[in-house]
Amino acid sequence: MPVNLSAPQSSDLHPVPGVRIGVAEAGVRKLGRKDLTVILLDDGASVSGVFTRNRFCAAPVQVCREHLAQGLGIRAMVINTGNANAGTGEDGLVRARATCMALARQLDLASGQILPFSTGVIMEPLPLDRIEAGLPAALADASADHWARAAEGIMTTDTVPKAFSAKVTIGGAVVTITGISKGAGMIRPNMATMLGFLATDACVAPSLMKQLATELAEGSFNRVTIDGDTSTNDSFIVIATNKAAHTPITALDAGEGLALKQAMMDVARKLAQAIVRDGEGATKFITVRVEGGRSSEECRQVAYAIAHSPLVKTAFYASDPNLGRILAAVGYAGIEDLDQTLIDLFLDDVHVAIHGGRNPVYREEDGQRVMQQSEITVRVLLGRGTASDTVWTCDFSHEYVTINADYRS
Amino acid sequence: MPVNLSAPQSSDLHPVPGVRIGVAEAGVRKLGRKDLTVILLDDGASVSGVFTRNRFCAAPVQVCREHLAQGLGIRAMVINTGNANAGTGEDGLVRARATCMALARQLDLASGQILPFSTGVIMEPLPLDRIEAGLPAALADASADHWARAAEGIMTTDTVPKAFSAKVTIGGAVVTITGISKGAGMIRPNMATMLGFLATDACVAPSLMKQLATELAEGSFNRVTIDGDTSTNDSFIVIATNKAAHTPITALDAGEGLALKQAMMDVARKLAQAIVRDGEGATKFITVRVEGGRSSEECRQVAYAIAHSPLVKTAFYASDPNLGRILAAVGYAGIEDLDQTLIDLFLDDVHVAIHGGRNPVYREEDGQRVMQQSEITVRVLLGRGTASDTVWTCDFSHEYVTINADYRS
Repeated sequence: MPVNLSAPQSSDLHPVPGVRIGVAEAGVRKLGRKDLTVILLDDGASVSGVFTRNRFCAAPVQVCREHLAQGLGIRAMVINTGNANAGTGEDGLVRARATCMALARQLDLASGQILPFSTGVIMEPLPLDRIEAGLPAALADASADHWARAAEGIMTTDTVPKAFSAKVTIGGAVVTITGISKGAGMIRPNMATMLGFLATDACVAPSLMKQLATELAEGSFNRVTIDGDTSTNDSFIVIATNKAAHTPITALDAGEGLALKQAMMDVARKLAQAIVRDGEGATKFITVRVEGGRSSEECRQVAYAIAHSPLVKTAFYASDPNLGRILAAVGYAGIEDLDQTLIDLFLDDVHVAIHGGRNPVYREEDGQRVMQQSEITVRVLLGRGTASDTVWTCDFSHEYVTINADYRS
Repeated sequence: MPVNLSAPQSSDLHPVPGVRIGVAEAGVRKLGRKDLTVILLDDGASVSGVFTRNRFCAAPVQVCREHLAQGLGIRAMVINTGNANAGTGEDGLVRARATCMALARQLDLASGQILPFSTGVIMEPLPLDRIEAGLPAALADASADHWARAAEGIMTTDTVPKAFSAKVTIGGAVVTITGISKGAGMIRPNMATMLGFLATDACVAPSLMKQLATELAEGSFNRVTIDGDTSTNDSFIVIATNKAAHTPITALDAGEGLALKQAMMDVARKLAQAIVRDGEGATKFITVRVEGGRSSEECRQVAYAIAHSPLVKTAFYASDPNLGRILAAVGYAGIEDLDQTLIDLFLDDVHVAIHGGRNPVYREEDGQRVMQQSEITVRVLLGRGTASDTVWTCDFSHEYVTINADYRS
């Protein structure tokens, strides 16, 4: 059961002018599943992406990078679930390229105008024939209204589709922002998440797209973690179809550009947090905020140590305020000159530890009260500086073990 | 159920001349548990230790460091379970020092000749009165034959006591080596494990003791991990009682010194591996060996990424050869210039991946066969150099979640 997250209503997801989506059942791994999605872009769209830093990055990630670098203008994306096409060596690259060629033929485009994405089991050969056979049905299904179907089409162990939408006025024009994401395990994005797609019809100078994608990923997908496992396939794609009737945006740090970025960040963050809310076996949504650091890097380092600790995560699952485990994680986060006597710990409004020891007025029942909530904020004050950072994570339950012990079978 | 590990027989544990041990039930946390242990050393023993690098190190760890630095000659150690006296601030230091003073009074020693150790729940005040009240019974119990009782007396979530013993001939004299350890969760020692004590009656130049302790920890306790959580209380103590009839050892890198070190390493490694075999919820003992690295540091980095991955650990639990998860962990281990096309993966003798992709002759049934064993070696070849390193770990089961969701209740 995801934590305070329900499936999006199709009526809540605004179509983005210039984007059409089609979904089909290709039987990549299992029959009767929507496992093949195509996203079609009108001519003139700007596309940028950030990808996993995993050195074992999947074949489609490598092909995405190549095709974006070619600069032919991306016109379509093809996404399959059921198979990650990762750990597949040279043969995997051949199959990822062949997927693009098959779609390019049907759309009369160059292969370099297609981006491929795969998610699912690692180290199995991609069933190219089934994907090729499924493409006509996916194309026939294409419609501007199919964002909700796409959110469903890219799911693997996700229990609910993830999609959010917003409208914002930019330069006098009402602009739409709609995005989808997927992922529930092997989630500790490093540059991006498993899969996230965010589209707007706003007009953005092509030269700004890389910066926009990077900043959006940095503030959203790069701040969530489920199990600390950085996937081989993480990809986050930002699309501007440039259809809206406003002067193109030429800077992101002020005025209309900042307004657009903030509106897109809001949707990107909801998409990223949705992945945590639907984390494998998650029963709680945890915000880990670390303040008083010398740099945001060291704050993040401490936040991730807490967010990845199996002991902390199982204590949250048990609603047990076994909060010394959080202090232990702070201690081993790797800040060599950390002074434990300066550290304070809060659980929501409850002041648990002060100067590195138990707060004399802390009562177990207050910790217990907060631990029973489905949304909890852990706040650590390092007492070393003025920097801060935030990471979102979930707890660690029996269900996580069950899901991951059974995933392939 | 620990993995291929049974409780030591008292008759297999050789007494070490110059060491006596007593155990009592002090009711630190629960009634009817042997939770207080004293180790008494004859005058003339050399003692050294290595301790956790967790910046939230416990009060007894801080006091151990102080007392070892004083150089008065360590004559006794006092170990309680049920309470870690960590995250307890200034008050925790006061209580750790008071424990030493109480034992020093009973033995007519200086407080600085006592080392205190605590293990158990974090951030709860140490029940000093109960420990003081229990000391006379522990002292009355003291005997050279009580190593097995001590191994039991220091257990927390351990399911079996851990103790090993060996004899080796040094300079014509038969020398004894006996040690105990404890720990089953919050185990990713950084300098040492939760608690490990290794004693010999060999004669070792006092100036060599620190080097000996460090090298032994480095090759044993610093190579095991259960959940990646570095404890606040890790302590590994090496004792040489200098009772044996041989010329004192003055170097560790050759001759008799090397022979002694290797014999001690063998016992230390068994003690460290015993902690993994009894890892919380463990059903498998996994050796992760990484070869072909540019340095042993980077081999260790890759080995720990594999050993800490919840996805890898749950796949071992499920006996599912979902081996792409291992490649993913190799990829995110943090080696920036890793070339995936050079990487090979073996599961015992089965060659799973070659040049970063699935080995064409690899058959799922071969992977399956190895995965069903209770002892498995994962071997990764990085193809970058000649360095190698090994880490030992266990799988991740439902039982781990159960234990850690229930530990305090």
